[in-house]
Amino acid sequence: HVHQSMSNSSTSVVANARPEGPKTEEEKDLDFANYFHSYGFLYHQKDMLQDRARMDAYRMAILNNADNFKDKVVLDVGTGSGVLAIWAAQAGARRVYAIEATSMATNARRLAAANGMQDVVVVLEGYMEQLNIPEKVDIIISEWMGYFLLRESMLDPVLGARDKYLKPGGALYPSHAQLLLAPLCSQLYSQRLSEYEEEVYSWARFGEYMRAQNQIDIGVLDPVWDKEQHDYLMNTAHWCQLHADEVIGDAVSIFEFEVGAATIEDVSTIRSSFSARIHVAAELNAFGGWFDCQFKGSSASPAALPVELSTAPPSETHWGQQVFMVHPPEAVESGDLLEGAILCTRQKQNHRLLHLQVTFKITRLDGTATDERTIKYKID
Amino acid sequence: HVHQSMSNSSTSVVANARPEGPKTEEEKDLDFANYFHSYGFLYHQKDMLQDRARMDAYRMAILNNADNFKDKVVLDVGTGSGVLAIWAAQAGARRVYAIEATSMATNARRLAAANGMQDVVVVLEGYMEQLNIPEKVDIIISEWMGYFLLRESMLDPVLGARDKYLKPGGALYPSHAQLLLAPLCSQLYSQRLSEYEEEVYSWARFGEYMRAQNQIDIGVLDPVWDKEQHDYLMNTAHWCQLHADEVIGDAVSIFEFEVGAATIEDVSTIRSSFSARIHVAAELNAFGGWFDCQFKGSSASPAALPVELSTAPPSETHWGQQVFMVHPPEAVESGDLLEGAILCTRQKQNHRLLHLQVTFKITRLDGTATDERTIKYKID
Repeated sequence: HVHQSMSNSSTSVVANARPEGPKTEEEKDLDFANYFHSYGFLYHQKDMLQDRARMDAYRMAILNNADNFKDKVVLDVGTGSGVLAIWAAQAGARRVYAIEATSMATNARRLAAANGMQDVVVVLEGYMEQLNIPEKVDIIISEWMGYFLLRESMLDPVLGARDKYLKPGGALYPSHAQLLLAPLCSQLYSQRLSEYEEEVYSWARFGEYMRAQNQIDIGVLDPVWDKEQHDYLMNTAHWCQLHADEVIGDAVSIFEFEVGAATIEDVSTIRSSFSARIHVAAELNAFGGWFDCQFKGSSASPAALPVELSTAPPSETHWGQQVFMVHPPEAVESGDLLEGAILCTRQKQNHRLLHLQVTFKITRLDGTATDERTIKYKID
Repeated sequence: HVHQSMSNSSTSVVANARPEGPKTEEEKDLDFANYFHSYGFLYHQKDMLQDRARMDAYRMAILNNADNFKDKVVLDVGTGSGVLAIWAAQAGARRVYAIEATSMATNARRLAAANGMQDVVVVLEGYMEQLNIPEKVDIIISEWMGYFLLRESMLDPVLGARDKYLKPGGALYPSHAQLLLAPLCSQLYSQRLSEYEEEVYSWARFGEYMRAQNQIDIGVLDPVWDKEQHDYLMNTAHWCQLHADEVIGDAVSIFEFEVGAATIEDVSTIRSSFSARIHVAAELNAFGGWFDCQFKGSSASPAALPVELSTAPPSETHWGQQVFMVHPPEAVESGDLLEGAILCTRQKQNHRLLHLQVTFKITRLDGTATDERTIKYKID
């Protein structure tokens, strides 16, 4: 019998077995249970609604560009509590279709009515892919961004909706996004390393206890324990609110795209090389990953006041940053050149979670270079 | 986008839609993802292996009754890391079939071999219901107990295995179990109440913020928030390690059964009345729930040294106790009689989780009685 906190497991549960997303009804049930379910609680909606940078960016993008929304038809993919849809209505939209897969749809409907927008905002409960919107739309708004931009794979239904419903020249909010990577000397590294060492040590003590108390030799499981802890503590991305001084070199864009032009294939597998200059003598003990996105409207209907939402440190958003440990670390000097490549793919057992592979080497100012290293991470 | 800690949700995910358990393949996938999955980590196995009371009870029940195991065929339902199976082999069993649904089966196989029991312990990976054991067995051992005894519904496959494989006169380890309820004056009540009050207050402040900062009136969701928090904080069972002095009256058995004779129906819906004397003047602000079980063997093959495993306070087991809030509390005096009834059923959306309904009144020494109250809880 496992502790009540078993759902607080260090790893995520299996959602479905296809990297491209759920296809059968049972895969959809599984995906709902493991993913959408969380969005059905006001508790989690509050978390997102309290994220000032997130809210300011969307609010300004919509309300400060009200001319673009006036008398338009808008689609909000994954409306949650319905706030973006209400803003679109406040900006003068003629009609807003607000799609929500969870029962939070009921609250979105209540909230729209309480804010006097029941004649404009039409909340539809269901999966974007399975609903029929009765008309083409001028604008699609959506807050689909996950950790490391792409975790959760929430962009898929947005791109599907775009292909099916967006009028030629229509705009996506946000319109552009970039994924960034930067070399770090992070406090989180030593924290995770000491947790890892403590877990290895405590397993050894536990082995002595099991032999003395229970007449069972568990030594054969030592490497299994070590791997489980290493996978979790050193090779899984960790959420962090980085300080600016933990970034020790250039933050470089490893992927950028226009939401209006990207395909699901484009965002399912990312291959990219990068080159970043180190700025200070330090230990490179991690990479940091985050994203920026922009609200520029479309070329046919550009935003008069473009807005950027950045999750770079020291921004304080609920996305924070993702930290990928470099274990063991590499000593670096100011002027060293960090060069490498990344491969980001979806996990086979859960298309909403990611694998990230980082290959890198460091070239010193004197021309010597470290051996190339490759580290594989899970973004769970 | 919900926080990475979204799997730390206050409520459990949907596992399957039938209270009697998964029937279709998709329901089984869902159940595996949400339930068995956790048992695939050594981290959780270690938690259970460190539970001294749990381990001592099983070890003594098996090794101190080695005569009952000598040359016998044993079945271990849900072997996990395989320790109970190894003990059965150490006690002299001729053959132990150890069934495990998760990939922990591989570790159980390694552990059995490392402890010299590879010729006795046969680890089979799969669901109990779907495997074929090639012979009848003399003894079934299993650690199937969940919070409040019945959470997790792990007894079902044990009873199924008993009906299919246990020889007449064969023994179950444990052989008997009781579910207990006691009146509490618990510290947890005031803690949860203040959390609840803080959540209600913070939502009100959040409402002011949303109106001022975001031009959205969220007042219509006040009762939705209140209900979500109340359901979680006041009407969901909470894990606790109770102190003995938090128990303010008799702990009474509300359900007891012989594992060898019970049916799945018997353990799926429990109806019972109870009557407990209050021992001290206090505030009755909660009920506590826990279980005991016994290892007595069978009548044909009784244990020479019967063992009891109790999770009553102040025992320190990983099961702890479950606390059910009585909000608002009832003032009670020494000698008051607490009378009531319980109805415990499985949740429709997840047969491993429970509903508990408690109806009660308090009769004073002067013969006056409180109104009858009924409170419904979830055991998530």
